[in-house]
Amino acid sequence: MTVRGAPAIGVTAAMGLALAANRSKRTDPEGVISDLEKAGQILRSTRPTARNLFWAIDRVLRRAREAANQQGDVRSAVVKEAQLMADEDIESNRRMGQFGAALIQDGDTILTHCNTGTMATVSHGTALGVIRTAIRQGKRVKVIATESRPRLQGARITVYETLSDKIPTTLIVDSAVGITMSKGMVDKTIVGADRITRNAVVNKIGTFMIALAAKHHGVPFYSAAPFTTFDLEGESAEVSIEERDPKEVTGICGKRIAPKGVGVFNPAFDATPLELVTAVITDRGIFSGEQVRTMSAP
Amino acid sequence: MTVRGAPAIGVTAAMGLALAANRSKRTDPEGVISDLEKAGQILRSTRPTARNLFWAIDRVLRRAREAANQQGDVRSAVVKEAQLMADEDIESNRRMGQFGAALIQDGDTILTHCNTGTMATVSHGTALGVIRTAIRQGKRVKVIATESRPRLQGARITVYETLSDKIPTTLIVDSAVGITMSKGMVDKTIVGADRITRNAVVNKIGTFMIALAAKHHGVPFYSAAPFTTFDLEGESAEVSIEERDPKEVTGICGKRIAPKGVGVFNPAFDATPLELVTAVITDRGIFSGEQVRTMSAP
Repeated sequence: MTVRGAPAIGVTAAMGLALAANRSKRTDPEGVISDLEKAGQILRSTRPTARNLFWAIDRVLRRAREAANQQGDVRSAVVKEAQLMADEDIESNRRMGQFGAALIQDGDTILTHCNTGTMATVSHGTALGVIRTAIRQGKRVKVIATESRPRLQGARITVYETLSDKIPTTLIVDSAVGITMSKGMVDKTIVGADRITRNAVVNKIGTFMIALAAKHHGVPFYSAAPFTTFDLEGESAEVSIEERDPKEVTGICGKRIAPKGVGVFNPAFDATPLELVTAVITDRGIFSGEQVRTMSAP
Repeated sequence: MTVRGAPAIGVTAAMGLALAANRSKRTDPEGVISDLEKAGQILRSTRPTARNLFWAIDRVLRRAREAANQQGDVRSAVVKEAQLMADEDIESNRRMGQFGAALIQDGDTILTHCNTGTMATVSHGTALGVIRTAIRQGKRVKVIATESRPRLQGARITVYETLSDKIPTTLIVDSAVGITMSKGMVDKTIVGADRITRNAVVNKIGTFMIALAAKHHGVPFYSAAPFTTFDLEGESAEVSIEERDPKEVTGICGKRIAPKGVGVFNPAFDATPLELVTAVITDRGIFSGEQVRTMSAP
């Protein structure tokens, strides 16, 4: 959890493999690749839900094997690939920002969940990147941030990022989304994604309930994610949803809040059916839920 | 917030008036009533949403005027009325328990929100009272408790009460209700109410989103409340929803979690439209949402 946010997790894994390549004591290309595969195994076991992690490891290993086949330098190929992926992530966020900003009107108040900004990506952000681009285009945008229990990434990180950008921000508890929408305070909802399957947006716990509230109130619900987050061969039921330490729920900031002996269910993500998603904002354009359902795997 | 839970708030207000009657320095019945009215004004201003508060104050004042009209002892009439109301609350909870327990099957897992037990009523509880009665009937029931941010009454109080009763209990963050229902972990949802109007159940913040999730998953959603919580002359839009200290959201257990300068929206309650409510469990029987809508004010 030192690194969080699917795009940041992906690029960090690529950088981890670059580090592993540099540290490998093997001199033969096959030996370096074997060390990379071992490092990849360790990295894969860290965050089962984030699609970008698996995508990044696969891509770097593919590049390493390609370099070996072409009698090239595996180490420098891996380092260059990781650097390219970091650059591409920024570029991809900016493209998502351009596509997504077209959906935002001057004066909109946008509800977002968890953190999807500079601290979840290499830079700019996914959902928060869309908001940033709209603001750079001169649109006035206000943000409503959910606190995002249990780890409070909304209260701690999103609010820090939006206030740093001087975006007027209102913080609410996660369970206040319903009344906030009932009162007409929300024009649009934009969240990120950890994995987009054929039938669902898998994202931070609570996203599903926000989407249900948005549907009930007719508030557009968007997920912003690069194509590296897409897993079009999978269905959400097959996705491994990370369950985290019960202490995140029984305590806050190190202070115990619940009596001992209580059971805990602490899934870090949930799956929002595409029927509840107005559109997905990607680095290749905007797609409706129906378009995602019928999209062929790249 | 020393006293919380609509039924407990109502009876405490009645006891407060009994105290005010005893402390009144006036010797004439009209003087005592005037002191009671002043005390009632103060009590009315404490918790605008809880229907039982206004019901209790009105009832005690009505009894005081009645005693004065009949040349009776206003003080003792008020004290007796408050004691009667405390006894009636216990009796009312037990009746609700009997009616509601019929809806619970052996082996059910019941999701509940906030606290509706012994510490929200005079004794037994509303939603938790229904669960208690079912267990006393020999049914095996498990509870899933939401933590109920911002004040964590679920994590702190409900879990304490259920574990004291040896009821197997699982604690979740409020935003995990959706996935918990998706996974088929919830058979029924039972919550309390702070006010039931012609069109909605007004209850602890987050109830509305739980009801939306229940509807989506076909999980029955019940609200348990005595008739003293009903406000059939009102619509939810007219109900004053208490907004509480922003510090409840920007901090937890005295520790600041969000950067300074952030705005906060901290409503303590929300309104769940009756269309989302399978039935209301009362001390006079079980009523569907449609029956509540067409019920005449008592």
